[in-house]
Amino acid sequence: MPLAARTVLITGASRGLGLEMVKQLLKLPSSPEVLLAACRDPGSATDLQAVARSYPQLKIIKLDVENDEDIRAAFQETQTAVGDRGLNLLINNAGIFTNKQDGGGVSQQTRDRLQKHFNVNVTSPLIVIQTFLPLLQQAAARDQSQGLSCNRAGIVNISSAMGSQTITFAHGAGTALDYKCSKSALTMASILLARELKDSGILVAALHPGWVKTDMGGQGADLTLEESIQGCLNVIGSIGQENSGKLINYKGEVLPY
Amino acid sequence: MPLAARTVLITGASRGLGLEMVKQLLKLPSSPEVLLAACRDPGSATDLQAVARSYPQLKIIKLDVENDEDIRAAFQETQTAVGDRGLNLLINNAGIFTNKQDGGGVSQQTRDRLQKHFNVNVTSPLIVIQTFLPLLQQAAARDQSQGLSCNRAGIVNISSAMGSQTITFAHGAGTALDYKCSKSALTMASILLARELKDSGILVAALHPGWVKTDMGGQGADLTLEESIQGCLNVIGSIGQENSGKLINYKGEVLPY
Ligand SMILES: NC(=O)c1ccc[n+]([C@@H]2O[C@H](COP(=O)([O-])OP(=O)(O)OC[C@H]3O[C@@H](n4cnc5c(N)ncnc54)[C@H](OP(=O)(O)O)[C@@H]3O)[C@@H](O)[C@H]2O)c1
Ligand SMILES: NC(=O)c1ccc[n+]([C@@H]2O[C@H](COP(=O)([O-])OP(=O)(O)OC[C@H]3O[C@@H](n4cnc5c(N)ncnc54)[C@H](OP(=O)(O)O)[C@@H]3O)[C@@H](O)[C@H]2O)c1
Repeated sequence: MPLAARTVLITGASRGLGLEMVKQLLKLPSSPEVLLAACRDPGSATDLQAVARSYPQLKIIKLDVENDEDIRAAFQETQTAVGDRGLNLLINNAGIFTNKQDGGGVSQQTRDRLQKHFNVNVTSPLIVIQTFLPLLQQAAARDQSQGLSCNRAGIVNISSAMGSQTITFAHGAGTALDYKCSKSALTMASILLARELKDSGILVAALHPGWVKTDMGGQGADLTLEESIQGCLNVIGSIGQENSGKLINYKGEVLPY
Repeated sequence: MPLAARTVLITGASRGLGLEMVKQLLKLPSSPEVLLAACRDPGSATDLQAVARSYPQLKIIKLDVENDEDIRAAFQETQTAVGDRGLNLLINNAGIFTNKQDGGGVSQQTRDRLQKHFNVNVTSPLIVIQTFLPLLQQAAARDQSQGLSCNRAGIVNISSAMGSQTITFAHGAGTALDYKCSKSALTMASILLARELKDSGILVAALHPGWVKTDMGGQGADLTLEESIQGCLNVIGSIGQENSGKLINYKGEVLPY
């Protein structure tokens, strides 16, 4: 089922996977009526601005996910933009993987580096979810006869197979304690939230986009942006209750945690 | 095989599981020659002080695991105390589970609360491991003919079945996003470190002590301190290479991640 959420918010939309999601969402047969592309610095997000000139339904908003005031302001803007539709789909895409080159073993870590990864990759999506929950609940409540879906009300956390405790070593990139521990925690958060929010009609999934050619993935990666996001949007459109709380890849395969 | 590590350091030894480990370690047939009981505030650790009066091999050291200067100072004291034996066993036991009573769902969280759990429960043990690594390597190098064991050189991270992504819901205590995500990340760190440190001869395991009657576990818990720690010390004494990187409970059963 192609994704048909009416109102969507994506974090980290300035470049990479987030930007590509924005582009492809706008070309869907039933593209969103309101698409909020959140980024740290709208003024310098020239690619996003170029897209916005052709698509009035695209609204660029400022959101550094580490900043609680930004999150509250983004909530206000979103509420105004979506009105009584609420928010059908929140995609927590913003993420970091710094100092990738050094292997990220225990000797390469610092307290700040570890805490920064936990903050951006787990704590921030959780505070974003907390803040936007009323809008997701509002969307979910509009059609209580429907089962769980991202067209109704869904939270998609972009996690990683590198954060899977059973298959992490098949997904390379050294020890990478900072990145892998934080993504593992994000997958755990998705599992816990799926159960907590089920009765409100909200689906929660952790999505592994594949290894993709972006600034983070590098040019040696397996997939182009187009391939990854085409897969991701299909998956987001088709997952239902049975996949809530699962770690799923861009092909729709459920990965072991 | 009963544990026979010659030099041992335990964090969070002021009360609960850490204190009980200290007591039982001292009564083992081949108890440590040097046992470092690290706690935030030695001055107020009266139970620990009482034990120290009967056991000269017990040394109480100050260590708030959130404080990098404390960690460095504790390293110096440990190095002096263990001499050329190095450190056979580091038990990362200090941990927190605050605001347990409110369920720890997404609406109960704050950025500080989440970041505090990540800091104490994951980041701090990692910085402790980083700092003490030379002493563990020194111990490991003393007998290169031996396989991996906690008598030679081991790191035991006290994690929790609540942090297992597959069996968390069998272990209660509400959503507890802060605690469960941080323990999941600690288990992930143990998996990653087991592989990274294998070639240095260092074993790494994540240990679930059961649900135990302590300040954290509450009086309704399944196990007494004595039962849990008797099991834990047996397990720590007997695990080898095949269990490095595993999540194991106090009965020696390997739990799914
Ligand atoms: N590429 C891969 O192979 C791969 C594989 C698995 C998972 N992932 C995950 O997919 C997501 C997107 O990755 P990507 O490859 O597109 O990475 P990327 O090219 O490095 O882009 C990261 C995006 O996140 C944003 N971001 C970083 N910190 C932020 C903050 N504090 N507040 C708001 N936005 C912030 C960046 O914004 P700025 O432009 O302002 O820096 C940028 O838009 C991440 O969660 C990543 O972990 C990627
Ligand atoms: N009890 C259970 O059922 C259970 C189950 C699974 C796992 N665990 C884990 O087992 C470990 C011990 O738990 P417990 O039940 O003994 O808990 P507890 O009774 O609450 O004791 C916690 C210990 O950690 C110390 N601690 C906390 N923050 C610290 C810091 N920043 N620096 C140094 N020490 C710090 C405390 O020191 P102060 O006295 O200075 O506060 C205390 O010694 C924890 O990692 C816990 O998550 C417990």
